[in-house]
Amino acid sequence: MEKAELERQVAAAVDVARREVPLVGSVTNAVSVNFVANAQLAAGGSAAMVYLPDEAEFLAQAGGALYLNLGTLLPVHEETMPRGARAMRELGKPWVLDPVGIGIGSLRTGILKELKVCKPAIVRANASEVIALAGLWELDGGDVRARVRGVDSTDEVDAAEGAAVALARWTEGAVAVSGAVDLVTDGTVVATSRGGSPLMEKVTGFGCSLGGVAAVYAAVASPLAAALAATAAYNLAGARAFARAQAPGSFQAAFLDELYEASAADVAGNPFDIREV
Amino acid sequence: MEKAELERQVAAAVDVARREVPLVGSVTNAVSVNFVANAQLAAGGSAAMVYLPDEAEFLAQAGGALYLNLGTLLPVHEETMPRGARAMRELGKPWVLDPVGIGIGSLRTGILKELKVCKPAIVRANASEVIALAGLWELDGGDVRARVRGVDSTDEVDAAEGAAVALARWTEGAVAVSGAVDLVTDGTVVATSRGGSPLMEKVTGFGCSLGGVAAVYAAVASPLAAALAATAAYNLAGARAFARAQAPGSFQAAFLDELYEASAADVAGNPFDIREV
Amino acid sequence: MEKAELERQVAAAVDVARREVPLVGSVTNAVSVNFVANAQLAAGGSAAMVYLPDEAEFLAQAGGALYLNLGTLLPVHEETMPRGARAMRELGKPWVLDPVGIGIGSLRTGILKELKVCKPAIVRANASEVIALAGLWELDGGDVRARVRGVDSTDEVDAAEGAAVALARWTEGAVAVSGAVDLVTDGTVVATSRGGSPLMEKVTGFGCSLGGVAAVYAAVASPLAAALAATAAYNLAGARAFARAQAPGSFQAAFLDELYEASAADVAGNPFDIREV
Repeated sequence: MEKAELERQVAAAVDVARREVPLVGSVTNAVSVNFVANAQLAAGGSAAMVYLPDEAEFLAQAGGALYLNLGTLLPVHEETMPRGARAMRELGKPWVLDPVGIGIGSLRTGILKELKVCKPAIVRANASEVIALAGLWELDGGDVRARVRGVDSTDEVDAAEGAAVALARWTEGAVAVSGAVDLVTDGTVVATSRGGSPLMEKVTGFGCSLGGVAAVYAAVASPLAAALAATAAYNLAGARAFARAQAPGSFQAAFLDELYEASAADVAGNPFDIREV
Repeated sequence: MEKAELERQVAAAVDVARREVPLVGSVTNAVSVNFVANAQLAAGGSAAMVYLPDEAEFLAQAGGALYLNLGTLLPVHEETMPRGARAMRELGKPWVLDPVGIGIGSLRTGILKELKVCKPAIVRANASEVIALAGLWELDGGDVRARVRGVDSTDEVDAAEGAAVALARWTEGAVAVSGAVDLVTDGTVVATSRGGSPLMEKVTGFGCSLGGVAAVYAAVASPLAAALAATAAYNLAGARAFARAQAPGSFQAAFLDELYEASAADVAGNPFDIREV
Repeated sequence: MEKAELERQVAAAVDVARREVPLVGSVTNAVSVNFVANAQLAAGGSAAMVYLPDEAEFLAQAGGALYLNLGTLLPVHEETMPRGARAMRELGKPWVLDPVGIGIGSLRTGILKELKVCKPAIVRANASEVIALAGLWELDGGDVRARVRGVDSTDEVDAAEGAAVALARWTEGAVAVSGAVDLVTDGTVVATSRGGSPLMEKVTGFGCSLGGVAAVYAAVASPLAAALAATAAYNLAGARAFARAQAPGSFQAAFLDELYEASAADVAGNPFDIREV
């Protein structure tokens, strides 16, 4: 793929999402559910959050994409997550997985194992989580003992490239690895995206809401374009927000403002590099 | 009812809520629960949120009103919602219903059917939800197949007037229909309230928190006055916030500021029309 | 203890937390879980929130402290809260208890009774909750009928001193009583801390997030120093935020900014008095 063609697809994802307002269902964690919804709205989507299995299936039918984030699991998620993912798989629609907290608790491990065959269109995670997920799914570059620390990564993005590529090849989708420099791959090309602000680690939910926005774009674009569009939009809005606000409370409000105001051309023009793998 | 008398009641609702700080219990969704509580506090209430059945009954006893919002249902809500509503009905105290997500999933439908006989003092919803609820409760103007899209309305407020009037006559309370121009009715008069900002659809929880504020006012005023006071307060604060902030992150903070600072006279003076039906 | 020595310990708590970024697990309520996480991050910690019993035990093992807040109980908390607290007790690690809503519902009462033998390093509560908890645990100065009103206190901080001292002696930890003037005690000294803003009662979650920040400091300091550091940081950041923003929406953002920017010397220098009991 040419860089210019990917830029064009990123711009189209941002633009079409704003025009079509795709409905995106989410089963996501309690910590950042509000931020996820607001980021999805700022990016042009329509957001609906549920906990119950048949409600996830309803949104699978009604929506253009589904977002599954494993943050704060409740017992009901044992059924809801797999049923939501299976519904999307059967419908041939894209769903986005954020395996946050991978390695904490037996239910999370069980659900994540079950989700493998449902092949998410996009996996969004930090480096340690990507390595751990590839390990759990027994793919190249994976290591179930990846040093995830709570919800934080202890690995650099570079170290996760092999795992990310293997995951993308398995899912035939895309993987977005968040870090100082972000990496997005579909298993054939690797794009690295720059920007953002270190303050994004000082406010909870930037990773989660990036996954939610990726789902909005996935409803109207290819997994690679959607994952890169969301990553680029976050890098752009994060850098712009930091120029306005250098502390976390006002930074988060400024970020939502900038995400809302970023044009398709701005997002597509946010610096990234691309290479084949 | 004279318009001047309704204005007087609206002003009194705002004023008395600030002076008496009524305790209002809520069983509400995870997405906007923080916004609901902060809006209730900004309007002068004391907010307490619960999930468990006996805790909802406790708050029914202890509080001046109860708010039931069906957003992100969990299994426990099957028991909590009806028990909370029944407790309020038996105590002769007002409770507010937001049937958000009506049509998604079997539990929601079952709960909403059960709540009919508990007659909420106020129903707060968008046009499609009002039409769908009237349909579910087999009232005039209702249609269970109303085109609710996730949590968004696909109908105009005008189209819901018949359903709103029928609902208000059934409950002997009030119905507030949110939209570009808001409609509030007690089944004998219809008030239309103007103001707000289109940004209120770009931030999650404006509808939910309006319902929560209506419950604060319902603790100290008639259903009609409470529903109109909450609607007018939102239209006023929304318009004022938009004058300060034209993007969603800063808009939401500005809105809470303006809701907090709005005087009783300001809220009562927000433009509305009234007519008999 | 000399005041100067306590000041030194408070400064060290703030400083070491920023340097070591301790992982702190939380089982906390849905209303303010986002605020708790963001306050913990602003204070320098790493935040992870869970609902499930084995996940709380995992975080007990992995983290430096655990925060248990009884706000919006779900059925799963019956098992998660005691198992989390027991794990910390067995590991000899500090955990922080916020008994918010004490008196509402039977599950809350049952859990709180069970937590007594697990001896929290810090109890953070308002005056009425402190009196009610001491009553429930059958300690001096307690009264199970304390007039908690939903989540609000109806008692002055002074009235809770006896209960706070008795609680601290039982736990061999510290108790932080939030109010107009805050009181922190380890059962041998009482410190009173001033500052903050009345707006902190007009935004939900200031008490909850103070408990979460106390857990961050407890991972790196004694219970007394941690409880006073969190209280002083809130009083400092609250007063500074109020100087910038006099309404609740912008005040909350400004507060997180100020909490993030407060230096160790600033926090230690926030006015407090100390006396023996």
